Amino acid sequence: MLRTHTCGELRIGDTGKDVILAGWLQRSRDLGGMTFIDLRDRFGITQLAFNMETDATLCGKARELGREFVLQVTGQVVERSNKNPKMETGDVEILVTDLRVLNTSEVPPFTIEENTDGGDELRMKYRYLDIRRNAVRRNLELRHKLAFETRRYLSDNLFLEVETPVLIKSTPEGARDFLVPSRIHAGQFYALPQSPQTFKQLLMVGGLDRYFQIVKCFRDEDLRADRQPEFTQIDCEMSFVNREDILSTFEGLARYLFKTVKGLDIMPFARITYADAMKYYGSDKPDTRFGMKFVELQQMLQGAGFPLFDEAQLVAGIKVEGCGDYSRKQLDELTDWVRRPQVGAKGLVYVKFQNDGAIKSSVDKFYTSDQLHQLLEACDALPGDLLLIMAGETHATRKALGELRLEMGKRLGLRNPDKYACLWVVDFPLLEWNAEAQRFFAMHHPFTSPLPEDAQLLATDPAMVRANAYDMVINGVEIGGGSIRIFDRELQATMFDALGFSPQEAQNQFGFLLDAFRYGAPPHGGIALGFDRLCSLFGGSDSIRDFIAFPKNNAARDVMIDSPSPVDQAQLKELHLKLDQKQS
Amino acid sequence: MLRTHTCGELRIGDTGKDVILAGWLQRSRDLGGMTFIDLRDRFGITQLAFNMETDATLCGKARELGREFVLQVTGQVVERSNKNPKMETGDVEILVTDLRVLNTSEVPPFTIEENTDGGDELRMKYRYLDIRRNAVRRNLELRHKLAFETRRYLSDNLFLEVETPVLIKSTPEGARDFLVPSRIHAGQFYALPQSPQTFKQLLMVGGLDRYFQIVKCFRDEDLRADRQPEFTQIDCEMSFVNREDILSTFEGLARYLFKTVKGLDIMPFARITYADAMKYYGSDKPDTRFGMKFVELQQMLQGAGFPLFDEAQLVAGIKVEGCGDYSRKQLDELTDWVRRPQVGAKGLVYVKFQNDGAIKSSVDKFYTSDQLHQLLEACDALPGDLLLIMAGETHATRKALGELRLEMGKRLGLRNPDKYACLWVVDFPLLEWNAEAQRFFAMHHPFTSPLPEDAQLLATDPAMVRANAYDMVINGVEIGGGSIRIFDRELQATMFDALGFSPQEAQNQFGFLLDAFRYGAPPHGGIALGFDRLCSLFGGSDSIRDFIAFPKNNAARDVMIDSPSPVDQAQLKELHLKLDQKQS
Repeated sequence: MLRTHTCGELRIGDTGKDVILAGWLQRSRDLGGMTFIDLRDRFGITQLAFNMETDATLCGKARELGREFVLQVTGQVVERSNKNPKMETGDVEILVTDLRVLNTSEVPPFTIEENTDGGDELRMKYRYLDIRRNAVRRNLELRHKLAFETRRYLSDNLFLEVETPVLIKSTPEGARDFLVPSRIHAGQFYALPQSPQTFKQLLMVGGLDRYFQIVKCFRDEDLRADRQPEFTQIDCEMSFVNREDILSTFEGLARYLFKTVKGLDIMPFARITYADAMKYYGSDKPDTRFGMKFVELQQMLQGAGFPLFDEAQLVAGIKVEGCGDYSRKQLDELTDWVRRPQVGAKGLVYVKFQNDGAIKSSVDKFYTSDQLHQLLEACDALPGDLLLIMAGETHATRKALGELRLEMGKRLGLRNPDKYACLWVVDFPLLEWNAEAQRFFAMHHPFTSPLPEDAQLLATDPAMVRANAYDMVINGVEIGGGSIRIFDRELQATMFDALGFSPQEAQNQFGFLLDAFRYGAPPHGGIALGFDRLCSLFGGSDSIRDFIAFPKNNAARDVMIDSPSPVDQAQLKELHLKLDQKQS
Repeated sequence: MLRTHTCGELRIGDTGKDVILAGWLQRSRDLGGMTFIDLRDRFGITQLAFNMETDATLCGKARELGREFVLQVTGQVVERSNKNPKMETGDVEILVTDLRVLNTSEVPPFTIEENTDGGDELRMKYRYLDIRRNAVRRNLELRHKLAFETRRYLSDNLFLEVETPVLIKSTPEGARDFLVPSRIHAGQFYALPQSPQTFKQLLMVGGLDRYFQIVKCFRDEDLRADRQPEFTQIDCEMSFVNREDILSTFEGLARYLFKTVKGLDIMPFARITYADAMKYYGSDKPDTRFGMKFVELQQMLQGAGFPLFDEAQLVAGIKVEGCGDYSRKQLDELTDWVRRPQVGAKGLVYVKFQNDGAIKSSVDKFYTSDQLHQLLEACDALPGDLLLIMAGETHATRKALGELRLEMGKRLGLRNPDKYACLWVVDFPLLEWNAEAQRFFAMHHPFTSPLPEDAQLLATDPAMVRANAYDMVINGVEIGGGSIRIFDRELQATMFDALGFSPQEAQNQFGFLLDAFRYGAPPHGGIALGFDRLCSLFGGSDSIRDFIAFPKNNAARDVMIDSPSPVDQAQLKELHLKLDQKQS
């Protein structure tokens, strides 16, 4: 090694030791007789001291060094006169006796500091410099630790990590595949996996019992903010299990990770049905760090002559604690906020329960004081609280009120990133009606099983069938989801029928899995967790990009390596392809 | 869980317990009054007993079950009257009281046994059934364990696992890339990585200090036997190190894996230079489980009038112990063997030192008895030994004699798969002359550094420069290799010059890495180990395919999912591509 210690290692107990350190020049300060340099590596920062009186040549050399130069220094650990309690190595410094410049550096395009002056695009172009910053490095360390502890937990629970292929086959159902042209087989293509779903089910047919993989998956989607064309999944499957076994195993994983990685004891996961999640939070991934549950008010409020309420399918409100003194201006601003296209509400009704007991409402001409008091009581409101009410078509109203709830939670500081509210959302609908295609689509995928008690409805009333599916939701973020799979060929046939597939179509699309099911498929189920999302949750960030070493931008482009890029004609020719010039 | 215990779990101490097991019907035997079923899962086999006298209905039901049916049984653990010491559960059986058929099975296309009757193609087509066989399952379990312990060792040594991108950029240098057309950027392509080489070097520039990744890599090569278009690498890089640090770290990894996975204490790795490996074994990956080192004999044997020797650049032999009694027929067969095109020797000279002390040789008319005795002495031959000698152009002769050495080692049982001979081959040539292109190519890659003592030769005598590169070789298999990298821009410029690159060409091909090197690249080096190969070595097999869950065949085809395959015109259109019909 070119060092005896790292830059994060030396303490007061090391005083007197002769050491060699190597790292980057973070900062240097000339104080007349002395020059101090902060030397940085992955592990920390150690102060180097050069004395103009005792070694003018060396000190002079030190004064010529620039930021991000790579240095190797020899010297003695001495106690600092001016200790820095904020640094772990702040009690000591190195009295340098020898200095070697291992490499020089041009001035970096942005500062390598906790808070940098570099904008997003610049930092992405020079991602290798961005990674030198503590903030980014810590994220990658967190990711490493989460991956390792995930593997440890699953290994301890007898899961085998099995690598499934990356060069697979395109299937028209689902999102768009990335394709890989074959050179050897002219006119044929591989596809990159959107998930190892079929392979993990085949591994269960193969008797592997418990499978997992931390695995790259690929989707050629039009990118929204914070989506990546390649992303990482913790992909798992178990045999001979029912839903409870999967929920307890992966609740166990989450709690193990919180404990080992963050030192937190997490409460047992709450459970909520999809129906209740929509009814009380207007979302299938509710943030339950705070209450503000919906109260349905149409029975109480309809019939008083207020047309918005009278004509609505749903009237529902939330109680916002401590906001009873909101000004007209604040309420107008909130009304504007819910009318934004992203929320899409027509309007907002308020009832202020002032601290002095007075009630003020945008609808007080339609209701008596008694009625308003009853309303406040139905919402458990106390003096000082504010009711915010929306009305309209049920689903749209719930969604809009759900957005408002999240916004009020944010404004009131109720969405503390250091607090974790974990839950399972269960009993999703099995099928979704697609008006355009005039057929049902599987909400999860066609191998998701119905709840046993709903299975007989599949042939008669498919829309009512609940799936044996579940999502893990933490702080309003869908961390992952899964289901108990269909493993019975008859039920599978009924399912394909409900999806409008002929037996032949089913065979064409899912042939090798259906074939496998002929040979004794065991009962099985699984889950896939979004690993990038899990990392950002643990890192207290909203952005997955901060937790990916070399992310792509919103146009699916890697601006550092400048990819994708044109290729040689010769390469295309080998692949039996031509560019379709008309379109490009 | 649908079971209380696995099929590998119950022992004599469990007698009397009421249990539920689930698994596959391996085999059933009707013995008149009793029916026995072997129930199999990933963890083992447990015998089920059905008694015709006590429950005729249940026993009758059991008799109707077919191979590979999926069963759930309830019963009591009882001691077997007829114990099977070969099975871990062989002391007990389950007296079944309830039987549920979880799934039926058609008769599998081959037997699910340790030694199956299924041929290679059939087993690959039904790989999910092949995986049910102990032999395959054990390989996947071994792979899981090797991966996990590799991660544990490297994590404990402060390496961070960092995921590098899969959608990267095509570079013309090196093997052929798989390409991925971009839909969003018409006419542009990603490439799949042949290795994360540049990214791991960028992570060192980024100060991550120690990186690893167990990662899929891709090469679009014309497949040879036992090559896969996608393969897995243990990819590593370290900063502030010299060669010794890397060798000791990864020798440590190998020894740790042998200890934890196989319970073996491995000797410290031997070291051999590339020059000596070629000189003594005719291979840069010598199998050193046995001796049979080459003895160079041209000084001793030239000038006696035997033209083959007199005109040869090299005359070299091996001593094959205990084969001095080889018959004429055996020697003729060996001569034919070395003349096969795969070996390509022109002929073979033998000297038999018979047990009775007599010497017989195919060249005895050219040499006196004294000369032949001196020859035997030079080779340390004892009565009963055989010398096999080849002559010709140095490199070709070494290669052919190396093949013969391996063959004789195999025939004599000296290549025991349970014995491990580990070594580092060091000091490879930095450059290889390519006669066709009339320029040097980097033997490893253009960022491999020369040995410090050879660096000044790079500008004057490039062919003589040795690389600071190393290969890990175990039992004649190249497990992996790496190098200390160039991190100095001046040396890098000299290197590109030696490779015949103009500065502009270097910038075009390796621009972003060269750019990164402007900002303080630390000294660094690394290694990549072939993980599939490591698994097959640990599994005592020659085939990597046995250790890949879903391998592709020699035509890069997955015969199970039938991929690659044609895709819709609409998909191609979205990708701005047309098939080049002229060629296909």
